[in-house]
Amino acid sequence: MVEEFKEAVQRRKARVESFLKWEYLRFSDDFKDIPRGTVLFGSTIIWGYPHIGRIFRLDNGLKEQFEHPFFIEEKVDGYNVRIFEHDGDIVALTRGGYICPFTIDRVHEFFNLRIFEENPDIIICAEVAGPGNPYIEESPPFVKGDIQFFVFDIMSKNKREFLPYKKKSELINKYNLPAVKTYGRFTPDDIQKIKEILFKMNEEGREGVVFKEDSERNKRVKYVTSNANLGDIRVTAKNMLQLPPEYFTNRLLRLVLFMEEEGIEKTERLYKDLGKAFIDGLFDAIEQYKKEHRVSRKFICKFNKKENALALIEQLSSASRHIQVIQSRLEKEGDYYILEFEKVYLNMTGFLGHILSGGLVFD
Amino acid sequence: MVEEFKEAVQRRKARVESFLKWEYLRFSDDFKDIPRGTVLFGSTIIWGYPHIGRIFRLDNGLKEQFEHPFFIEEKVDGYNVRIFEHDGDIVALTRGGYICPFTIDRVHEFFNLRIFEENPDIIICAEVAGPGNPYIEESPPFVKGDIQFFVFDIMSKNKREFLPYKKKSELINKYNLPAVKTYGRFTPDDIQKIKEILFKMNEEGREGVVFKEDSERNKRVKYVTSNANLGDIRVTAKNMLQLPPEYFTNRLLRLVLFMEEEGIEKTERLYKDLGKAFIDGLFDAIEQYKKEHRVSRKFICKFNKKENALALIEQLSSASRHIQVIQSRLEKEGDYYILEFEKVYLNMTGFLGHILSGGLVFD
Repeated sequence: MVEEFKEAVQRRKARVESFLKWEYLRFSDDFKDIPRGTVLFGSTIIWGYPHIGRIFRLDNGLKEQFEHPFFIEEKVDGYNVRIFEHDGDIVALTRGGYICPFTIDRVHEFFNLRIFEENPDIIICAEVAGPGNPYIEESPPFVKGDIQFFVFDIMSKNKREFLPYKKKSELINKYNLPAVKTYGRFTPDDIQKIKEILFKMNEEGREGVVFKEDSERNKRVKYVTSNANLGDIRVTAKNMLQLPPEYFTNRLLRLVLFMEEEGIEKTERLYKDLGKAFIDGLFDAIEQYKKEHRVSRKFICKFNKKENALALIEQLSSASRHIQVIQSRLEKEGDYYILEFEKVYLNMTGFLGHILSGGLVFD
Repeated sequence: MVEEFKEAVQRRKARVESFLKWEYLRFSDDFKDIPRGTVLFGSTIIWGYPHIGRIFRLDNGLKEQFEHPFFIEEKVDGYNVRIFEHDGDIVALTRGGYICPFTIDRVHEFFNLRIFEENPDIIICAEVAGPGNPYIEESPPFVKGDIQFFVFDIMSKNKREFLPYKKKSELINKYNLPAVKTYGRFTPDDIQKIKEILFKMNEEGREGVVFKEDSERNKRVKYVTSNANLGDIRVTAKNMLQLPPEYFTNRLLRLVLFMEEEGIEKTERLYKDLGKAFIDGLFDAIEQYKKEHRVSRKFICKFNKKENALALIEQLSSASRHIQVIQSRLEKEGDYYILEFEKVYLNMTGFLGHILSGGLVFD
């Protein structure tokens, strides 16, 4: 392992990061079988959360992918964090392996941290979702305000495997951890019941599910609803040029494949929803540009400590050269510091600036 | 020029092509200031048709781009050919510089070829459009069947400039050439009138216009209607994976920018049309795959000579490794040979095959 780490650094697939009081090695790309987001924290390896393959069809997909029964868990639309204890601190890493000052600031409000005292080796894998999160523009319908944590896996330090389902459930129950909704244990023969679950999730605006095989290999597969894809388009059309264009074509394909399998009719309503998702988002961008000479989105997050809010702004500012972060407010209000900031989408801003002033495009 | 040609060949930007009875040098990519599609035919250079920049806004766009009055011509949605005489033959080249056996076969039906006898140096630049063309799936509403030619420029051998507008019009009139519709000579101050023209074209399902400056530099700029973009999406959604994903995001941006400038309301009707364009095309692909295990589109073209039909099939077959061409019929019917063939979109076919059988995708 040490050799691979050295090689990764040489090849610039891993780099030393220094943030808040920590210095650590972060895999910025997949390297051999080591996933992006893996970090070396002191002498402890925190493995990256692995890539999970997606099926576009339930019927053949489940039959094809699973050899044993599988659990179904809800897939929540938020950001993925790994939370662990290190030298007396609780640390949280994003999927990419960055330290997340927002999660670190808020985690104690949602977790019984005794779990780390009594199990110092564990790493909790959770989704943080809700309108008060600083990264993701979408929010599940069942998180009404601020944020919530949803635990979906537990790992151990220096190990890349997840704890078995039963062991994970025991810990979740023992410490009363906030967890994703689970639907039970199924086989591919339960296809009708599974389709009904997904049909209902789609109606409720939920994102989808992760299937987890009840076996040694603990294989995972994900599947998302039509509405989740529609929601992604609705939210991101405004900053279309900030995302790879496949982002949109992939979602269009998934949306239609879901409809086709679930037997959802091609109704006027559905046509309208999709057209509206694209058109309104782009109109919104044009209108904002004409008024404010930028295309941006506002975020509002709550912090316990001012220093964590400032650290988040610092981190976001250096995260992408295509996004400018403007802090517009940081004030104590009751028990919290309220941070308001704007992400200015520079590609979309630049493009609209060019063409609205009459510029030429060669495409 | 000779030096540049040699360098282009060395750098694999130009290559020798051999097709029908001709052997010639073709620029397969832009190289320095030589556009893709430029060819060396014997000792004659046929310059490639240049790239034309696009504006997304009429108001500022025309003011910004033009120093002199400009002509407005209709932009027709077909394929671009350059037609000239060479050693007693009429030759036609596609935009990419390939010899087009279909155009060569049919051109005499639409042109008074005396123009080449009396002006052996000229190159006619035309769009060929209609449901009977072998390349483009769309067809303008004003071409009811088969094909039509629409001349929009005239060039000379060995020269990269176009003939001046007046000279071009004289030749078109003298030889009664089929030409694109012209709307007259305007300045940016005529913006209201120009917007009305485009608004009407949009209602009629026409593609758009090319502005051509009445000056020495003969600058050109193009602009397309909202409906043209919608039409592109409607026709190509079925083979979404065959096109670069920017194809779709570019058209979405253009569509909304057109609407916004023309003050077109965001109506239910428009939302529906856009959603339908994507959803129906993709459903169509899934349904065809389930029935026929392929995603394809049928073309029917008329030829005078059987050998030209066979040459077209040969050319199309070698044009892209992502498209398989299947000839399904070639029969004499009245005065013509009727060629029917299918283009099988292999990317879309492969993708649907993989996922409909339950395959996994890491995206």
